Amino acid sequence: MTFDTADLVPMADAIRALSMDAVQAANSGHPGMPMGMADAATVLWSEYLRHDPAAPGWADRDRFVLSAGHGSMLIYSLLHLSGYERPTMEDIRKFRQLGSPCAGHPENFLLDGVECTTGPLGQGLAMAVGMAIAERHLNAEFGDAFVDHRTWVVAGDGCLMEGINHEAIGLAGHLKLGRLNVLWDDNAITIDGPTALSTSEDIKARYAATGWHVVECDGHDFASIRAALDEAVADERPSLIDCRTVIGKGAPNKQGTAATHGAPLGDDEIAAARDQLGWEAQPFEIPQATLDNWRKAGARGRKAHDEWHGRLTGSDRRAEFERRMAGDLPAEFGLESYIRSLIDEPQKVATRKASEMALGEINAVLPDTIGGSADLTGSNNTKAGGIGALTADDYSGRYIYYGIREFGMAAAMNGMALHGGVIPYGGTFLVFTDYCRPAIRLSALQQTRVVYVMTHDSIGLGEDGPTHQPIEHVQSLRMIPNLLVMRPADAVETAECWEIALRQKDRPSVLALTRQNLPQVRTSSEELGLSARGAYRLKSADAERRVILIATGSEVHLALECAARLEQQGIGADVVSMVCTQLFDEQDDAYRADILPDVPPGEILRVSIEAGTTFGWDRYTMTNGLRIGIDRFGASAPAEDLFAKFGFTADAIVPQITDKLNG
Amino acid sequence: MTFDTADLVPMADAIRALSMDAVQAANSGHPGMPMGMADAATVLWSEYLRHDPAAPGWADRDRFVLSAGHGSMLIYSLLHLSGYERPTMEDIRKFRQLGSPCAGHPENFLLDGVECTTGPLGQGLAMAVGMAIAERHLNAEFGDAFVDHRTWVVAGDGCLMEGINHEAIGLAGHLKLGRLNVLWDDNAITIDGPTALSTSEDIKARYAATGWHVVECDGHDFASIRAALDEAVADERPSLIDCRTVIGKGAPNKQGTAATHGAPLGDDEIAAARDQLGWEAQPFEIPQATLDNWRKAGARGRKAHDEWHGRLTGSDRRAEFERRMAGDLPAEFGLESYIRSLIDEPQKVATRKASEMALGEINAVLPDTIGGSADLTGSNNTKAGGIGALTADDYSGRYIYYGIREFGMAAAMNGMALHGGVIPYGGTFLVFTDYCRPAIRLSALQQTRVVYVMTHDSIGLGEDGPTHQPIEHVQSLRMIPNLLVMRPADAVETAECWEIALRQKDRPSVLALTRQNLPQVRTSSEELGLSARGAYRLKSADAERRVILIATGSEVHLALECAARLEQQGIGADVVSMVCTQLFDEQDDAYRADILPDVPPGEILRVSIEAGTTFGWDRYTMTNGLRIGIDRFGASAPAEDLFAKFGFTADAIVPQITDKLNG
Repeated sequence: MTFDTADLVPMADAIRALSMDAVQAANSGHPGMPMGMADAATVLWSEYLRHDPAAPGWADRDRFVLSAGHGSMLIYSLLHLSGYERPTMEDIRKFRQLGSPCAGHPENFLLDGVECTTGPLGQGLAMAVGMAIAERHLNAEFGDAFVDHRTWVVAGDGCLMEGINHEAIGLAGHLKLGRLNVLWDDNAITIDGPTALSTSEDIKARYAATGWHVVECDGHDFASIRAALDEAVADERPSLIDCRTVIGKGAPNKQGTAATHGAPLGDDEIAAARDQLGWEAQPFEIPQATLDNWRKAGARGRKAHDEWHGRLTGSDRRAEFERRMAGDLPAEFGLESYIRSLIDEPQKVATRKASEMALGEINAVLPDTIGGSADLTGSNNTKAGGIGALTADDYSGRYIYYGIREFGMAAAMNGMALHGGVIPYGGTFLVFTDYCRPAIRLSALQQTRVVYVMTHDSIGLGEDGPTHQPIEHVQSLRMIPNLLVMRPADAVETAECWEIALRQKDRPSVLALTRQNLPQVRTSSEELGLSARGAYRLKSADAERRVILIATGSEVHLALECAARLEQQGIGADVVSMVCTQLFDEQDDAYRADILPDVPPGEILRVSIEAGTTFGWDRYTMTNGLRIGIDRFGASAPAEDLFAKFGFTADAIVPQITDKLNG
Repeated sequence: MTFDTADLVPMADAIRALSMDAVQAANSGHPGMPMGMADAATVLWSEYLRHDPAAPGWADRDRFVLSAGHGSMLIYSLLHLSGYERPTMEDIRKFRQLGSPCAGHPENFLLDGVECTTGPLGQGLAMAVGMAIAERHLNAEFGDAFVDHRTWVVAGDGCLMEGINHEAIGLAGHLKLGRLNVLWDDNAITIDGPTALSTSEDIKARYAATGWHVVECDGHDFASIRAALDEAVADERPSLIDCRTVIGKGAPNKQGTAATHGAPLGDDEIAAARDQLGWEAQPFEIPQATLDNWRKAGARGRKAHDEWHGRLTGSDRRAEFERRMAGDLPAEFGLESYIRSLIDEPQKVATRKASEMALGEINAVLPDTIGGSADLTGSNNTKAGGIGALTADDYSGRYIYYGIREFGMAAAMNGMALHGGVIPYGGTFLVFTDYCRPAIRLSALQQTRVVYVMTHDSIGLGEDGPTHQPIEHVQSLRMIPNLLVMRPADAVETAECWEIALRQKDRPSVLALTRQNLPQVRTSSEELGLSARGAYRLKSADAERRVILIATGSEVHLALECAARLEQQGIGADVVSMVCTQLFDEQDDAYRADILPDVPPGEILRVSIEAGTTFGWDRYTMTNGLRIGIDRFGASAPAEDLFAKFGFTADAIVPQITDKLNG
């Protein structure tokens, strides 16, 4: 289906009008980008994008990512005009107001058709890379009949200047993701002014150097846009479509300047724009003929959707495909028998190794997982269970060599999880959560099931020194809303944590894992699955309980040693393994009070032991408790020397406890 | 000075021998890179690098940055062989052991000649860009006679794959930093294996697209290396020198493979390497002739240093230059009269605006500052005091349009501060501290004076919504050791915080500033400089004190309102403005006990109010206190609506306090 220019002009101007008016009504927002990209977006959505507004969840729809998320009125306009149930015009009238799904930046959890949350620049493009990977992988597994769609991105100069775009396009070029097409809103304007203020780069040459196909068009000429999109679709490489545009196009006095970027145009300029565009409808009203054309364009995809549904219905793989896309685990999935085998034969291994062992079990029976590492495969122990590499030659592989691209990896995993049908996990050193923190935050905000396998989780990594030793990281990740941070103590807890992470349909998990070997502390088969409680009593006081030791990960066995020494002195001590503070906080009052009884200070001393910052541990030790941790940067030395230096020995800790009890 | 090949071979092999032996002795480390780059580094350090080992602090020395910091034995070898006082051979024998300055990764605070701490990949290169900016800026201010040096970088494939390298080289290309030369250790190997596993990029074409000069050499052919370095020195653009190398060169069975990257070679392979190289000296012994040549190479710079010193001594600008390089503020510098003017005429402004006002005062009298923003100049209010842009045409400017490169900006600022002679500050939105967090951490670890101007510091930014609203950020920054996080409440505190930040010679500061206007809460001229205490009593209880409200930034005026309501009910309430928790923690016991008296729970209720996570506030409220905060993601709406929704009103807070008092 193609439209005449006479139809397309008002269709595009409808986007311009809605964008101007909504930003003006909100008295904040970004009109320049939607107005500048209105023409290209109109061609894309009316003639190319494969979607069915009546069924936004259609698994084989094209994915559309507005990487330049500040231009949110572009996608709200497109969704409304194309015939999605939401946003309604009333929603758009309430752009940026409390309760409207038309938030300042597009939020995937507020509107169908918003494939991901964007705004933090560069990440939309990087998530689109993940979507395109998931598409090719599922295509390799289920064939063209089930999975055969494109990923479209609208990105601005800001997205292309961010470091993450380098990582993302490097990965996309390497994996030859030809079904990924990026429309670059090349308006040469950023917030501070012309892009020439801060960059002199030949972006097209850079993309070409990274294995991309590059094509240009006049972003305000429908034929030119079509020609470029056709060329992009035809090319086997990922494509950068350089849409030369005028920011704020249609605003006669402000277009082409930074003044249209991030502020309302003002009533006078809007009036002048309406004059210039010949747009006579009232604010938030769309002329019927234009709306009819938009709805016709929106209905375009229904036939393809019906045909696809027919193929699905006729296939014996339907149930498995639908399970995958729904994000459900197979009914028979579980690690109980593996965990029982650990209890039967305890293992002294690093938890990174324990993670590899668990993954060996998981990957063998759960086809959904796609693993990877940012060039630390042998250190993160992420390749397990016989999975092979996902490459440009074989998208059916389930392991991605992400290269030294932590942020790109994390964002790609978000994209995969948002696409659906796969469960991504990936590893780097825990200290480099800093490198991918913006994407971890978006995992949490977007409610994606991504599993971060973060090894080398303390000074216990030893000689690599302070640049590589997490201090503040575990606690600072625990602060991020809707993120589970788990620090297992041994092979049993590690397996339990993996199962917990996989069962979180709506939130990401970070597994903090050791480099160094740890004894197995869970050796009883009486009760399994204890980690799901977040914290549990690993050892009960023998003598009268006067101390509760609360430890995590590699410090749990140390807590057991301290407890044994205390008991020798007649001081009863519980040991609580606090695998995941967030899950513990979610337990009911009775459970929490059982583990950490609310007795007057002085009666029972609570002691936290974690080889990281003490910041925040007051929450569990209470003010009068004792917090064993490290509130400075680490050092370079063998792990045992560091644990001694920083006081992580029973010799150093027990006297502090007895002093406090006596004090 | 040039050396014959017959001299250079053993000079390079000395690096190989030390690297093999030190890694073997430590039983951990990375021999592959030092062995692969030994030849190129030998040419660079013996014939090109302008330095004086006897005077590592010489202001006009070339800066050498080992961006691929895991290859730390390369720089330890070079420093020792060239004649630096440290590391001694004994230090090298204790590579990676507790107390040795030869840490796993190079640490600028442990050894002279280590210009920056590297290891987190890509950041060394990005810091070098900052050093090169500082060099050109000081050259523009003080002339060739004082400042005329180069910045050399050794970077690996990992550095070039990281996103930050895109930001860094974009900035360097744009600013035409021709005195920046990057030697790329092009060995086509990463930890996981061949680079072809994860990248297909034409790196040279990408650098060329970004305004760089690119030249190749055989990294094991001295003549080829010289020709490339000569060409790089001659070119006006920043140069990428593609050194084609064999990783682990010299280890006959392992060279060219990932096996040499990050593990000891083993005794057998070391013996085989010694055979192949004809290296007969004992471990940690250097043949005298070779050592003599290295020391001769090291002494090469003394004459230039002496001449430079002569020019310095003869100049009337010596004192100012030395003040700048020492990092001292002018004796007369201070903001007291400005602060008094604020107290005389209170201002209701956003603290970002207050920061601009303070900067207007500072920049006008302190020539050391170089400001900038990651494309949010008008939002961060960072351009003030009449400073002009620092551009390729005019390096004397003091404002950098960093573009949409938060991480690159932060790393460049680290480089500037490490170079010395300038005090960098730069802005973005507080939420995007996540984008530059790895560099903020390195600011703290490296003890650099960098000022982060982070605006839009809470839900108070309003409509941009959860992607832009910090929740966990302020607290998560407070966890980073050696970093001051300041959240001023009004124009007076903002000015005080600026002065505090500028006076920290050995640590970075984050200023968390509001988008929204705030009333001035400091209106008394009785005592100035209160923010330096970290926290202080802004208002004392009138009625008997039963409550201490501890608030920061935009919540301080809210705390005052709550206190007024409590007093109306006969409940005495102090209000403490906690500008900087770290500075408060550094006060003596008596001061802290005066502000937050250690009375039994129940006698005085402590309440924290901060529009961010409550995580960690237990430290100041104690367990039985009340913590007003936001433990979920924000939302898109006008600020007032959000403050109401999230309970940041006196109406919402006061009843919680009275309930708690009565409960």
